[in-house]
Amino acid sequence: LEICGGRRGACAAADAVMPVWILLSSVPGLKAEDGGMEELTTEKEAEESHRQDSVNLLTFILLLTLTILTIWLFKHRRVRFLHETGLAMIYGLLVGVILRYGIPATSYHNKTPPSCSLKEGPASTLLLNVSGKFFEYTLKGEINSREIHNVEQNDMLRKVTFDPEVFFNILLPPIIFHAGYSLKKRHFFRNLGSIITYAFLGTAISCFVIGNLMYGVVKLMRVVGQLTDKFYYTDCLFFGAIISATDPVTVLAIFNELHADGDLYALLFGESVMNDAVAIVLSSSIVAYQPSGANTHMFDASAFFKSVGVFLGIFSGSFVMGAATGVVTALISFFGLHCFPLLETALFFLMSWSTFLLAEACGFTGVVAVLFCGITQAHYTYNNLSEESTKRTKQLFEVLHFLAENFIFSYMGLALFTFQNHIFSPIFIIGAFIAIFIGRAFNIYPLSFLLNLGRRHKIRGNFQHMMMFAGLRGAMAFALAIRDTATYARQMMFTTTLLIVFFTVWVFGGGTTPMLSWLHIRVKQEYLFTSLFPCRRVGVDPDQDLQPCGDSFQVLQGDGPQAEGQSKTKQESAWLFRLWYTFDHNYLKPTLTHSGPPLTSTLPSQCGPLASCLTSPQAYENHEQLRDHDSDFIRNDGDLTYTFGDTSITANGASGGGGGGAAEPAWSANGKRSGSTSEEALERELDSREQELLSRGTRLVFPIEDHI
Amino acid sequence: LEICGGRRGACAAADAVMPVWILLSSVPGLKAEDGGMEELTTEKEAEESHRQDSVNLLTFILLLTLTILTIWLFKHRRVRFLHETGLAMIYGLLVGVILRYGIPATSYHNKTPPSCSLKEGPASTLLLNVSGKFFEYTLKGEINSREIHNVEQNDMLRKVTFDPEVFFNILLPPIIFHAGYSLKKRHFFRNLGSIITYAFLGTAISCFVIGNLMYGVVKLMRVVGQLTDKFYYTDCLFFGAIISATDPVTVLAIFNELHADGDLYALLFGESVMNDAVAIVLSSSIVAYQPSGANTHMFDASAFFKSVGVFLGIFSGSFVMGAATGVVTALISFFGLHCFPLLETALFFLMSWSTFLLAEACGFTGVVAVLFCGITQAHYTYNNLSEESTKRTKQLFEVLHFLAENFIFSYMGLALFTFQNHIFSPIFIIGAFIAIFIGRAFNIYPLSFLLNLGRRHKIRGNFQHMMMFAGLRGAMAFALAIRDTATYARQMMFTTTLLIVFFTVWVFGGGTTPMLSWLHIRVKQEYLFTSLFPCRRVGVDPDQDLQPCGDSFQVLQGDGPQAEGQSKTKQESAWLFRLWYTFDHNYLKPTLTHSGPPLTSTLPSQCGPLASCLTSPQAYENHEQLRDHDSDFIRNDGDLTYTFGDTSITANGASGGGGGGAAEPAWSANGKRSGSTSEEALERELDSREQELLSRGTRLVFPIEDHI
Repeated sequence: LEICGGRRGACAAADAVMPVWILLSSVPGLKAEDGGMEELTTEKEAEESHRQDSVNLLTFILLLTLTILTIWLFKHRRVRFLHETGLAMIYGLLVGVILRYGIPATSYHNKTPPSCSLKEGPASTLLLNVSGKFFEYTLKGEINSREIHNVEQNDMLRKVTFDPEVFFNILLPPIIFHAGYSLKKRHFFRNLGSIITYAFLGTAISCFVIGNLMYGVVKLMRVVGQLTDKFYYTDCLFFGAIISATDPVTVLAIFNELHADGDLYALLFGESVMNDAVAIVLSSSIVAYQPSGANTHMFDASAFFKSVGVFLGIFSGSFVMGAATGVVTALISFFGLHCFPLLETALFFLMSWSTFLLAEACGFTGVVAVLFCGITQAHYTYNNLSEESTKRTKQLFEVLHFLAENFIFSYMGLALFTFQNHIFSPIFIIGAFIAIFIGRAFNIYPLSFLLNLGRRHKIRGNFQHMMMFAGLRGAMAFALAIRDTATYARQMMFTTTLLIVFFTVWVFGGGTTPMLSWLHIRVKQEYLFTSLFPCRRVGVDPDQDLQPCGDSFQVLQGDGPQAEGQSKTKQESAWLFRLWYTFDHNYLKPTLTHSGPPLTSTLPSQCGPLASCLTSPQAYENHEQLRDHDSDFIRNDGDLTYTFGDTSITANGASGGGGGGAAEPAWSANGKRSGSTSEEALERELDSREQELLSRGTRLVFPIEDHI
Repeated sequence: LEICGGRRGACAAADAVMPVWILLSSVPGLKAEDGGMEELTTEKEAEESHRQDSVNLLTFILLLTLTILTIWLFKHRRVRFLHETGLAMIYGLLVGVILRYGIPATSYHNKTPPSCSLKEGPASTLLLNVSGKFFEYTLKGEINSREIHNVEQNDMLRKVTFDPEVFFNILLPPIIFHAGYSLKKRHFFRNLGSIITYAFLGTAISCFVIGNLMYGVVKLMRVVGQLTDKFYYTDCLFFGAIISATDPVTVLAIFNELHADGDLYALLFGESVMNDAVAIVLSSSIVAYQPSGANTHMFDASAFFKSVGVFLGIFSGSFVMGAATGVVTALISFFGLHCFPLLETALFFLMSWSTFLLAEACGFTGVVAVLFCGITQAHYTYNNLSEESTKRTKQLFEVLHFLAENFIFSYMGLALFTFQNHIFSPIFIIGAFIAIFIGRAFNIYPLSFLLNLGRRHKIRGNFQHMMMFAGLRGAMAFALAIRDTATYARQMMFTTTLLIVFFTVWVFGGGTTPMLSWLHIRVKQEYLFTSLFPCRRVGVDPDQDLQPCGDSFQVLQGDGPQAEGQSKTKQESAWLFRLWYTFDHNYLKPTLTHSGPPLTSTLPSQCGPLASCLTSPQAYENHEQLRDHDSDFIRNDGDLTYTFGDTSITANGASGGGGGGAAEPAWSANGKRSGSTSEEALERELDSREQELLSRGTRLVFPIEDHI
């Protein structure tokens, strides 16, 4: 409908909402198919093309179906070396090869399209006058003059090539929202400082290291004569930004399955979620950095600071917007809707979507807003939802996330063969592989050293190596790379990104299990468990799976040196964070949710009337229990292995009285499964009680004096 | 991308898949935003327009949010005179008024678009040569010459006007699929013959009656001089077809809430689901009927039979396609996936979507295919899904259906003011109101009379009146009407349809409760129940809600004469249906699901090896239970009121041994709720047992000798 010319950054934000709207508004319809066009020769062509469209989409659906069936087989046989995303890529590749080489490029167009000349610049709408009848045309974009005669020939390949904005605006939001929404973890909040450091500082370091290294590579290419077109310094930095977004989905899936260390999981997951947001904003700031007027694309202090300003502005704006929508949803859900899970879920979905639209309408980044919206929803709204809605919303976003993720990965496989502007440059590709390795190292090791100075619970060497190893690239890097493939530099970046994603997902993803044992990172044995309840352990969200629930921890090979240092986590959080926690726990949570202590006990006594007005009746009931839970957690948190015996006993008594909903009904039906011994029943009971306890609000772990 | 000219019917099918694909492929991207376009004046305009887009979409989202919040209030206060869809329309109307009259029509376009002339007919793609640079343009459609100067002026109203195909291809499929998927009811299958009669024969009668009456009205208008343009006989028939699709969503919601008679519910629900499909195919057959070459649009025997052929071809093709996909999904889910609810749900979703695409790719009607896919999925696949997946899939489609339905209704409200080609013709509107009334009467009363000749369980007079009353028009009529608003006749039809939908939803929908009591149709008291468990009865699917679970039936006012005649339902089904049931029960169900008798017991003994190969081990286990259940149902089915005491006792013993999943975990946790008396506990137990039993496959109700 409209074109998006000129500077990409400014345009990208405004353009981003388009696809969602397109989906609803710009479908070519039957409006104009009246009388005058009855004898058009294009009718058959249009019909044929529509069928082609649905066949193309069917291809993707069948690809996904095939992937699902194979994953099922793999999960059934406990194959761990290939994750579903890797599999989706392989199937995508195969179909890509077939589409590219298997099918003759038959075109149903027989002639090149008519052309007409104008002196003015291209407008978004063009009227065509054919013997008195007017037809409305919409600008699709510029095409190279060498492609004019190609336009009609490779129709099919063009058709399976999606518009990049689809990835940003339709496929990424559910993935990102789900990541934010499933963040609700003790381990995440315990490591929040480190996660933010890795995500912000680390991604920036990685971006600049990679950018500068690649600039060296580009200079080398120019010397060798391999560079045939322009490649600026800002392009290199842009590449650094897009390739710094890690996505260790494969590694995390295996961690999840093997119940690897919770802190390490939280560090990796948290970092990958946050650095996606950082990479998006960083890349658009770099585009905005372009020194005005000049074509030097070299360093310019004022433009640099402008970029930093843009970064901070967009990021904080999106953050505030996402958090605000989350808080509004929490407030709405606070006042009822409990009895109507369908309404609750629908409202939840609509509010989360409106965050995206609102951010785009205000010129911020929708994806970033959706991430923080997800986190806020999980922190506050989740506590207000009815038991059924918590499950519904989780499952809804789980399905959306699953479909979107696998779609992106299978499209990546396809794109390697169907995308028509690949530029394979061996030097650039090798350079990029080395650069991302060095960039990751400059991110992880120095920052870990700095963080360890402040952390009581140190990030040990084997954890650092694992984080280094888990620097996979995935959906976000791809989406950022495909967003703009107009120039020579961008095309080369796209090809390289694609190869990096393939390599890291297959090689690093596949090597996770060996790496875990090689690095002596302990995992929990779960074979006993899964053999007893084969249907239970898969597809359950990581929130629940990662809670260690017994003493069956063991190290895969040998014994890690992690016994010391674990019992000192209590004081780990910084004062700023502690301040926030106190504020959140004492004032925000009671105001926005039904959990937390009643405001009457936390607000100064002169605010009494206001406090009792804002506190929900339930809060009083919950208060006594919460006291127990919190203090219990804090006292025992140091050593996970010995924690849960205590906890479960305390919690058992407390929650039995409260009668709150258990997290998983299957588990609260104690003793209903036939054939389980009393020990198993006890273990399950402990597990279920613990989940119940954990599901009752985010437990942050550090001492609050008045609770002990 | 392509235009769709000429005859609408042929085009519609091919065009129908477009939007789905558009959503993924034709988003205007950044591809062409490179260098050359940097100085374009359109950049700011594009940015502004994108923001406008997201603001527009936000408007709809906020509309839906507002609707949800108000519904919540209504449900909370047990307001029954206004359903959520009626409410959505009211809010839509309000926003429509604001958009139309409240906001000054500021346009950010300053000039009329450039135009260029060609001698050839319009192609789908046009190249524009601007001083050596080529731009690709896509045909959007023909515009009236009088609108050329208007193109840019009412941008905003145009923007909130969706393309009609969106309704068909994005919003209707989830609604229709959900209808098919939630059909799994004893009452539905018991009344299948009647439902099919009303849906096929009744809709055809209604279509022809309304068509002919409207032709009279049109002739009258011509005499009076109110007709300013062409209005053919086929147009009248087309109007008859689109307005014959009933959608008593409001009435059914109230039935559901009040637990009105199950048979009446099934008749209404079944009819409305099926006649949507009939109306779609009927309307496209009528378009295809257009006598070739001639412009008479009068009756032509050969064209008529061609139409009938088209109707039968499209309908049966779509039916076969939908059923086939359902069977394939059942087969896939038969072989595992049990342990992976996420994979199961995703597969289920993908397969159902692929039905739509496949049908469109083959030139059939996607919506019809999706309906029968839903029915097949519910009949076979549902039985193979894991307990969690059954809930997940139901909830997923419930949310999609809820959002889509309310979106359509709020858009209807909006369209009354923002649609720019309304033609209000009082004579036509009054005529249409009378015609739909007469058409409905010619559908219900004669067919009921005929059906009662064959039915043992007669459709009584008050039921007939209620069916007459429940002839509301809704989403499907609107979608069919808005699909093509190019001609004068179609625009007048669209306006009239909109008014009919408003009137019937508000007046008939609001009058359901008084009508029920006036017609002495008995409903079940549920106040006791809801006051005990306020959160339980709302949002649960009608499948479970409609099972009477005690003897608390009562008539709202007075006593209906329905005691006699109820105990003779056994022999109601026709021999053809009985044949199908036997085949389905003995061969299809055991092959496709884990329920039903083992094939070894139903196939002739010479097929032994094949039979034991096809039968799942579970089937043997289930067999004994099934025997009990089935026979029990058949024996007791006549009188609903006394059935369930027996059933529950039998089922209790049987299902306790089988250990199968209860339909609702909340209910299987017997005795866990505090404060319930033993009687309530018993009642709940009975209820839960009964649900468990019913959820274990569709129980068809008529005697099979070998089970007694």
